[in-house]
Amino acid sequence: MKQKLYLGIDVGGTDIKGGIIDANGKIILSEKVKSETAKGEKKVTENIANLCRSLMEKEHLTKEDIPTIGIGIAGTIDSEKGEVVYSNNLGWSHYSLGKELEAILGQKTILSNDANVACLGEYHFGSGKNSNNVVLLTLGTGVGGGLVLNGKLFEGNKGAGAELGHMVIVAKGRKCTCGQEGCLEAYASATALIKETKKAIDEHPESLLAKETVGKEINAKTPFDFKDKDPYAKKVIEDYLLYLGIGVTNLANIFRPDCILLGGGVSAQKENLTRPLQEYLDAHIFGKDGPHVVVKTATLGNDAGIIGAASLCFSF
Amino acid sequence: MKQKLYLGIDVGGTDIKGGIIDANGKIILSEKVKSETAKGEKKVTENIANLCRSLMEKEHLTKEDIPTIGIGIAGTIDSEKGEVVYSNNLGWSHYSLGKELEAILGQKTILSNDANVACLGEYHFGSGKNSNNVVLLTLGTGVGGGLVLNGKLFEGNKGAGAELGHMVIVAKGRKCTCGQEGCLEAYASATALIKETKKAIDEHPESLLAKETVGKEINAKTPFDFKDKDPYAKKVIEDYLLYLGIGVTNLANIFRPDCILLGGGVSAQKENLTRPLQEYLDAHIFGKDGPHVVVKTATLGNDAGIIGAASLCFSF
Repeated sequence: MKQKLYLGIDVGGTDIKGGIIDANGKIILSEKVKSETAKGEKKVTENIANLCRSLMEKEHLTKEDIPTIGIGIAGTIDSEKGEVVYSNNLGWSHYSLGKELEAILGQKTILSNDANVACLGEYHFGSGKNSNNVVLLTLGTGVGGGLVLNGKLFEGNKGAGAELGHMVIVAKGRKCTCGQEGCLEAYASATALIKETKKAIDEHPESLLAKETVGKEINAKTPFDFKDKDPYAKKVIEDYLLYLGIGVTNLANIFRPDCILLGGGVSAQKENLTRPLQEYLDAHIFGKDGPHVVVKTATLGNDAGIIGAASLCFSF
Repeated sequence: MKQKLYLGIDVGGTDIKGGIIDANGKIILSEKVKSETAKGEKKVTENIANLCRSLMEKEHLTKEDIPTIGIGIAGTIDSEKGEVVYSNNLGWSHYSLGKELEAILGQKTILSNDANVACLGEYHFGSGKNSNNVVLLTLGTGVGGGLVLNGKLFEGNKGAGAELGHMVIVAKGRKCTCGQEGCLEAYASATALIKETKKAIDEHPESLLAKETVGKEINAKTPFDFKDKDPYAKKVIEDYLLYLGIGVTNLANIFRPDCILLGGGVSAQKENLTRPLQEYLDAHIFGKDGPHVVVKTATLGNDAGIIGAASLCFSF
């Protein structure tokens, strides 16, 4: 008997990544093509379809083997309709990607937001394994959120929930891209961290942080590199951790999950984040003698998109 | 054939309320006895057991008719163990109420936090009816939370989740009873509203609000009664609504539920709360063209405890 395999697609603004995984989450085969977003929705859709066909042909898989394709996309996804409601990265609004693909391929599709998909992947095969309730925060350009509750992806009505980055933690605080003030995203994204680092450099041109970064690109790693030798970098990191700590504690009080996972660019800092955040959480969580909530780094990294998307198809 | 009936108990610091409901949520019979918390855990447990027996006898119900009893309690409940981890109202900590009752009555018990239970009741028979995802905030002495997600009570690990009142919305804000700063509870509870009203009276002894309340009890209704005729009362209400609006919007972004229900003492203000909160939510929710989230008053009122507790037994 043939081994059961699953196909997952990770649609980004630049690349479309696709892969075939087995029931243990192992990637058997993966491929990457250009998204070509500038050529319009139809072209991107064709590229996705061709990638699916290519992967299936190479593994000699039929539509009966792969009745359903899982797709993760950065943006607001109506998972019930299979519609991309809005995606900044792709420049799409209200595009029925699911239906279009189904018409081309003759296979069912399941769409979900990229952070949701990553959370599902981590739940099945990453650092959320053996957990029942898993919360994921992705710390990148923005702050994305994913929720697996009682072993199932929770997306809210029409997939519009789990917008954990748009939880206000500072009333009347920093302006967020969403229009609100004080969202977690405005404090805990890589973008926010870089902005605060640049501000510290501008305000303290005499500092080591400023002097040693002249002419260099400032990224989310910069303040971490300087935190032990420059007081302004240290302050940037302390503030960042405080706000992220508040966000993590809020999510622990709301969900009391087994673990809160950190993904996205900033999560490359691993213990630099998880150690102080765990301390903050343990000191501030409601009901300190209740079940422990562990802060961990997500482990699937760049593969989370493919693996998570493919695992959308596990019940199909 | 006998109609299927359910028994629910609502354990408070002063009274224990119990009732038998039918499958439509109609209370067939209810009774109330004193909790007698001062006499210790055993006595309260006996009082609960006697109340259960009395209700069953009056309706001629056997243990076969009522194999399971649902119990709602103010406090932190480990619903897996049937343990009251901590209850300020009852003065209990780590008391295995479930086991004790099962030993006396020979019936299974299901324990849950009072706000969780109220949310479940509202989901089945109150203003959460016909909804799939329901969030409840109880605005009383504290701010309690309840969650029904995908039609099921969500309590987090060991029932320690859904502590929605301990979501920080103002980093470094007002001190909360839980030790954190800036929790929703410190801004949106009846206690917080009364405190702010008293502060306004103290700071503005010349105001109408101060003059007309001399010698009178200040309660959560007071600032609402004066909001249209006194600028300081108006400000108290505006601030209260802003912070509650932030809390409601956060929950909408996290869960994208069908509705967010308001219960507890302050919710008696009905449209005085729901109308401005709905406006705030519609203006601030992430993804404004996504599925609508309705702010409503909980409708079961004092019966929510009995009805919700009894509905814990629906699957048994």
